Amino acid sequence: MIQGIGASAGIAIGKAFVLPNWEWDLPETGIDAVDLANEFERLYEGIRTSKNEIEYIKNEFRDIVGEEESSIFDAHLAILDDPVFMNEIQGVIERQYKAAEVAVKEAIDHFVTMFDLLDDEYMKERAMDIKDVGNRLLKHLLGAPEITLPADTQPYVLVVKELSPSQLAHLNPAHVLGVVTMLGGKTSHASIMARALGIPLVAGIEGKLPDPIQTGDLIVMDGESGRLFINPDKKTVDQFECARTEQQVRKERLELLASVDAVTKDGTEMRLSANISSVKELDMAVKYGALGVGLFRTEFLYMDRASFPSEEEQFEVYRQVVRKMEGRQTVIRTLDIGGDKQLDYFPLPQEDNPFLGYRAIRISLERQELFQTQLTAILRASAYGKTKIMYPMISSVDEVRQANQVLRRAMADLDARGIPYDPEIPVGVMIEIPAAVTIADLLAKECDFFSIGTNDLVQYVLAVDRMNEQIAHMYHPYHPAIIRMLRTIVEAARHAGIPVSVCGEMAGDERSIPLWIGLGVHDLSMSIQSLLRVKHRILNTSAEDARAAAEECYKLTTGAEIDKLLTDFNESSRFENQKP
Amino acid sequence: MIQGIGASAGIAIGKAFVLPNWEWDLPETGIDAVDLANEFERLYEGIRTSKNEIEYIKNEFRDIVGEEESSIFDAHLAILDDPVFMNEIQGVIERQYKAAEVAVKEAIDHFVTMFDLLDDEYMKERAMDIKDVGNRLLKHLLGAPEITLPADTQPYVLVVKELSPSQLAHLNPAHVLGVVTMLGGKTSHASIMARALGIPLVAGIEGKLPDPIQTGDLIVMDGESGRLFINPDKKTVDQFECARTEQQVRKERLELLASVDAVTKDGTEMRLSANISSVKELDMAVKYGALGVGLFRTEFLYMDRASFPSEEEQFEVYRQVVRKMEGRQTVIRTLDIGGDKQLDYFPLPQEDNPFLGYRAIRISLERQELFQTQLTAILRASAYGKTKIMYPMISSVDEVRQANQVLRRAMADLDARGIPYDPEIPVGVMIEIPAAVTIADLLAKECDFFSIGTNDLVQYVLAVDRMNEQIAHMYHPYHPAIIRMLRTIVEAARHAGIPVSVCGEMAGDERSIPLWIGLGVHDLSMSIQSLLRVKHRILNTSAEDARAAAEECYKLTTGAEIDKLLTDFNESSRFENQKP
Repeated sequence: MIQGIGASAGIAIGKAFVLPNWEWDLPETGIDAVDLANEFERLYEGIRTSKNEIEYIKNEFRDIVGEEESSIFDAHLAILDDPVFMNEIQGVIERQYKAAEVAVKEAIDHFVTMFDLLDDEYMKERAMDIKDVGNRLLKHLLGAPEITLPADTQPYVLVVKELSPSQLAHLNPAHVLGVVTMLGGKTSHASIMARALGIPLVAGIEGKLPDPIQTGDLIVMDGESGRLFINPDKKTVDQFECARTEQQVRKERLELLASVDAVTKDGTEMRLSANISSVKELDMAVKYGALGVGLFRTEFLYMDRASFPSEEEQFEVYRQVVRKMEGRQTVIRTLDIGGDKQLDYFPLPQEDNPFLGYRAIRISLERQELFQTQLTAILRASAYGKTKIMYPMISSVDEVRQANQVLRRAMADLDARGIPYDPEIPVGVMIEIPAAVTIADLLAKECDFFSIGTNDLVQYVLAVDRMNEQIAHMYHPYHPAIIRMLRTIVEAARHAGIPVSVCGEMAGDERSIPLWIGLGVHDLSMSIQSLLRVKHRILNTSAEDARAAAEECYKLTTGAEIDKLLTDFNESSRFENQKP
Repeated sequence: MIQGIGASAGIAIGKAFVLPNWEWDLPETGIDAVDLANEFERLYEGIRTSKNEIEYIKNEFRDIVGEEESSIFDAHLAILDDPVFMNEIQGVIERQYKAAEVAVKEAIDHFVTMFDLLDDEYMKERAMDIKDVGNRLLKHLLGAPEITLPADTQPYVLVVKELSPSQLAHLNPAHVLGVVTMLGGKTSHASIMARALGIPLVAGIEGKLPDPIQTGDLIVMDGESGRLFINPDKKTVDQFECARTEQQVRKERLELLASVDAVTKDGTEMRLSANISSVKELDMAVKYGALGVGLFRTEFLYMDRASFPSEEEQFEVYRQVVRKMEGRQTVIRTLDIGGDKQLDYFPLPQEDNPFLGYRAIRISLERQELFQTQLTAILRASAYGKTKIMYPMISSVDEVRQANQVLRRAMADLDARGIPYDPEIPVGVMIEIPAAVTIADLLAKECDFFSIGTNDLVQYVLAVDRMNEQIAHMYHPYHPAIIRMLRTIVEAARHAGIPVSVCGEMAGDERSIPLWIGLGVHDLSMSIQSLLRVKHRILNTSAEDARAAAEECYKLTTGAEIDKLLTDFNESSRFENQKP
């Protein structure tokens, strides 16, 4: 058994197909000076073809995995427009009279070496992007064939040194059971995309193999735990086949629950909504029984374009969502860029600590013209169905007041234009910054509802960036400080008589159910993939037992103890369920 | 009046001396291939001379401003050892047959352009470093004279496009009244050093000048507010001369307070200690009447060296501090690296959000052998005077328990070696992460004292990196969430019967005094520069009034309101003081 990094969940069993490295033979000789113009023309032609190809892949890919993941290819397009990279290539051609492909190869090597030396995860990812784009450009300059994967054989497990987003985009999920990469980790672009595509991936096994994997070897892999077996015995294969079948059956059984209400065994009702980022996800949300959209992330409307979307463009999208929800509610969160989300046409300063930086409402309150446009578009959509507005990253009462001033201006503007909207539209705030928890009683007087964003809240409360692999183990949603803060928030909301819901990842973790029931939180919003799993667990939970478990949690001193209690509770209620 | 950025406080009035840009004429022609070996030899010789010069400046400078600031020059030495930079230079000589100085110039331009393009504050600072080092190297290759400043004239106000740390190090504070830079900001290396040297500095005035400043112009500048006047009228000059004199008088009057107790007008006693980073600061701390060392930052013992300091080396330093304090207490904080503090010989992974990353106790608990060495050295020093141990960045009960396990191992080791230490040495934790506030009652059961680190606490609670100029205005110590958290911490400590002190910058802000008195916190530890100023304010404060003001603060809703109340209180008690 080889222990790799579990980068995309799922079990795969099949023959290995080992992909050779993507490398090209280069012409050894230089070119004559008279050919300079010709070399430049070839270079520009190669760039044009590469750009078209990337655009094509990007669009094709977006339909499968959505806006967020496909935006990886924007980084690639940007490299082909990058003056530093291009000057480097042109310089080698011009000064050293070398062929375009040699110049491209030298430029790639130069930047990759430099970025690697900086020993910075971000820079390494950029090096990977440059390698990926450069190789595509080389391919066109050399007229080399696309590396293709066998399509007419049995589905296989792909084994590769490292996987670029481009390569992943070329994979046909019907042929690829899973992927094993020598390098890479959980946060590489390829891993993010593999998760979006639902392809199991085990990464980072370099140096752990006794012998190299050969095409045809039997591979058993678990993308959740990161375990990998090469030519294992029959017992292991049977065991993992069993587990895979079980996963499949569980999935199918879950789908039957879509139209069932989320009620505990003893009659406590929960309301499950979906977190979505685009209109395309709505059908799926409805299919999986979401009672509404608890979080519509508007930032993806702003991405992948050349300028800010107009009021009309935004209105169209918001209206589509609101209408599709047919009377179920839609909570629209205003723009949350900055941090790790950037827009090409709105350059933000690079920051040492972007998570503690210029983002979300902080940008909206400084760029009030953009903010007012968005609020106007949301208000207009509110004429077509139950809509709520939610402000992200609120840390003070002033921010809510300032945001509401802009909202009132937007309303006055619509009044003047005679356009209808819901004048009673509820306005809420995300509780995701520690300060907001501590002054939740003050914030509750200024708004109509709270939604707890557990992802950021846990990060700030524990001072742990969960994307940082060095300390990711410290990212602990069940830390007693978090449990207490949840209680503070809920009590403040109850005291002020406003509703409170949860829209972070904790909402999609079934182990949290006792906490929500204990706290009296009945509204959870989560990724579409979590809806049925969580509902299934609620159906098999006793609210009375859950409340008792929550009471126990409050008494514990460490995150590990609370984690164990909730895991045990979850296991035991699962066990009860499996009895007739 | 021109509004620049106030980068180092103080008023300066004097004639301008405008420093021309540091640029050199280069030989136009290339060199012959036969001279390659010679060019390389010249390059290496230039590098050796530059390194010696930087080492010299660094050592000289360290004596004036201390370890932390002088470590800027380590970055410069590192550049001369950087393979990427050196390969670039050698490559130009070798492949293009150019003279060493041309190659250096091209390499500088190349890297500076590239780093500038990345539009990243950190990279810009690196670009500045490369320019600085490269220019020094160029100077030696060209045999150019050091640019010197007039020493035989009247003291002057230096006006310069941008100031490198090297240039600043060459300044004689006796000749330079103040500095005005066209570029730069509060956080540039030059600004940090100017503050350490006590030289007033106004930065960032490019584009704000109607006409360029000429040598000989009369300059009036205020490094606190960033205001700058060129050839102002006599009234303005008089006004600022008055203010400067007042600052001077105030400073002298303050020094008389060193031996006075810090007691309010109505008899409430406060205890003021010093935050220090090196043994050298001890004399000053004693001179300014510190009752102890409330925070000894040990990281500077680890900086500016080639490897971790041994137990003996650390013991020697800690013992010196403890002895010098002669029965006053010394609180030694264990290693707090990571975040923005790095060690050359202990490379940490580059992080996207270092403040939410691998730092302080998180490193100590993973590298327990290093941690045990440090704890052993502190324990040994405890045999020579009142010593306390303090753990930084604590976020959970587990961390305290794990750290105490290592401490017990260190004690057992000393027992076995028969070396004396204080077996009752108090062990405390920094409260600076929001989670620690929320579980302060649980932490209080595991340790002997709390010290509140307000700088990090405010950053995490508000999710604001205060070094980020874009949002620095949101860094608000008087946010109601902070005030409430302070209360939570103090109540938990009181309930558990352990002492609590404050060692962040809020302790040195006299406007906070009502808060400390209201909360019943009597131990404050601050920078040496703040000791007398804070004591002066305490002497002129009524504890009864302060408590009433604190009660008012608890009722307010926004940071601006609390800020105003505390500022008004401070102004009014200052006013009372000026009456007979």
